[in-house]
Amino acid sequence: MEYHIRYDNAQEALVLLDQRFLPTREKFVVCRSAEDIVTALVTMVVRGAPAIGVTAAWGCVLAARELEGKDDWHNVLERLLERIASARPTAVNLRQAIEQMRRLWTPDLSLRRLVEVWRAQAAAMQAHDIAGNRAMGAFGAHLVPRGARIMTHCNAGALATAGYGTALGVVRAAWDRDKSITVIANETRPFLQGARLTAYELAKEGIPVRIACDNACAFLMQRGDVDCVVLGADRIAANGDTANKIGTYGVALLAHAHGIPFYVAAPRSTIDVHTPDGSAIPIEERAPREVTHVGKARIAPGGVPVYNFAFDVTPASFITAIITDAGVLRAPYAEAIRALFARP
Amino acid sequence: MEYHIRYDNAQEALVLLDQRFLPTREKFVVCRSAEDIVTALVTMVVRGAPAIGVTAAWGCVLAARELEGKDDWHNVLERLLERIASARPTAVNLRQAIEQMRRLWTPDLSLRRLVEVWRAQAAAMQAHDIAGNRAMGAFGAHLVPRGARIMTHCNAGALATAGYGTALGVVRAAWDRDKSITVIANETRPFLQGARLTAYELAKEGIPVRIACDNACAFLMQRGDVDCVVLGADRIAANGDTANKIGTYGVALLAHAHGIPFYVAAPRSTIDVHTPDGSAIPIEERAPREVTHVGKARIAPGGVPVYNFAFDVTPASFITAIITDAGVLRAPYAEAIRALFARP
Repeated sequence: MEYHIRYDNAQEALVLLDQRFLPTREKFVVCRSAEDIVTALVTMVVRGAPAIGVTAAWGCVLAARELEGKDDWHNVLERLLERIASARPTAVNLRQAIEQMRRLWTPDLSLRRLVEVWRAQAAAMQAHDIAGNRAMGAFGAHLVPRGARIMTHCNAGALATAGYGTALGVVRAAWDRDKSITVIANETRPFLQGARLTAYELAKEGIPVRIACDNACAFLMQRGDVDCVVLGADRIAANGDTANKIGTYGVALLAHAHGIPFYVAAPRSTIDVHTPDGSAIPIEERAPREVTHVGKARIAPGGVPVYNFAFDVTPASFITAIITDAGVLRAPYAEAIRALFARP
Repeated sequence: MEYHIRYDNAQEALVLLDQRFLPTREKFVVCRSAEDIVTALVTMVVRGAPAIGVTAAWGCVLAARELEGKDDWHNVLERLLERIASARPTAVNLRQAIEQMRRLWTPDLSLRRLVEVWRAQAAAMQAHDIAGNRAMGAFGAHLVPRGARIMTHCNAGALATAGYGTALGVVRAAWDRDKSITVIANETRPFLQGARLTAYELAKEGIPVRIACDNACAFLMQRGDVDCVVLGADRIAANGDTANKIGTYGVALLAHAHGIPFYVAAPRSTIDVHTPDGSAIPIEERAPREVTHVGKARIAPGGVPVYNFAFDVTPASFITAIITDAGVLRAPYAEAIRALFARP
């Protein structure tokens, strides 16, 4: 499942699998401009921190391309990059991807040359993300006991990355070693990434998966149906506090109370050493309609307000280990993260 | 909102507000036979332990009526009562209501006379339920701090009872004293009783309510947005362990971890002294479709199995107090419950 973010050289367009229509329809959106990319990010055609990063990198390519032949393109390009960078606030990968691209934009480059450099860089980032996920899978699979029933939340899968997945990369690697594991996918309201995307990805590959409503989590743990939790991250602070999909903090606290190991799987790029702790992570609030409607069906009375925080922050103290593409981090995380970034 | 379970003497039928269509449509179902009542209970036209009890009582009246003029009606009536009693397994009120009716069925009664006796009894149970809820509200309102933001789960409201509600009865009574309280309604997947019913009931009376997805609970508590939790019960064991809508146990554990008072509001009839503790309470599993579909929209890939336990059990140790129609119970609950039932 590595066809969901595909740059089409013939069309000069980024073709995205529209995740809003999964699992019932495989529909694609063709992005030909920076504005198309912003729309795709805001409306969650594509979501998941690493996938957002790769999409943003291709957005830079499209931004540069649409200015070809224009004078005074520098300022306009700056503004387009900033527009893409602002599309979603919580995932650190988005700004990081834009910054990586910007570092390659040296004053000597013509626009045509910049497009070539960026195109190569975006492709490299995409390949690099998949390689990192495979490494993460290899490191993480060792933590999964034989026959484990693994709970996951949201979708930290192939669809959330360039391919293979972070948390689901660990699941895939564990499955390669042991065909007796099974997965519990929390449905993950309001956007239902678990029921729609995680179940879709895993079922497609024959990995046994069962969907649970988010509020069944505590009961399943109490029954002894959960052996470990593996999920992704949108931003990890320098002390290990982890922002991830709303509900993650609750799953972590419940896992802790039931003595169930709780693992976060994320590439080094998700760790933001400039964010000292979780309190410094901005939490995106999204439109009420995601809560009040499912598809076209209204499920709440008109005029009643809702909470729609898209993320929450799990204190590092609830995290058993952080599985990265450079190895497994254990508490104290501040130290482990410092050591990781001190490596050459 | 006391028109949702109404016996129509002219039609000789029980008219039920079909809660499956709320909040968007106010549709009524007319039950003319015991079988109609069973269908209404199984398909959740009506739900909520006390409402189920009252509906079942009227079901007995309809069962007796449909046998009028038949010979050998005793055995058939027995079977019909058993069918109604088996419609839902978890709520204790259902069997209790049937037993209360059966106690009035003495051998000397003609069928015609039995119908009269049962009709009077069903009406009395309905009136009694509302009176009990008002008492519960009066007892419970004292526990709600000024300006409290009260979290509730599922719908323990007027719609779940004969009227006024248990947990929402406490909310209504608190609102009567203090117009600065607000309510957070957990949406309560899969059936969405919180988003659909609690929000509908409260908004209709102008009580400020805000809907949250179930998985936002921990984050809202962490933010300090929740001052207390008040919710209902489907069965309370002799030691205080409480079966209620799936998700309740998670809310209780999270409230405990955040130092937030957690109150259960339920009439004495919900306490089952014959159930020693939570492990003896049967937990209903319902059809997968409730999880895989919302309205007509499929939200999960075909063929993927789901968990759909309708209830969970909260250990008594997580419950700050149980608000009953006979006063407020505090731990140790085994003792408090024994004392309550020892009263004349």
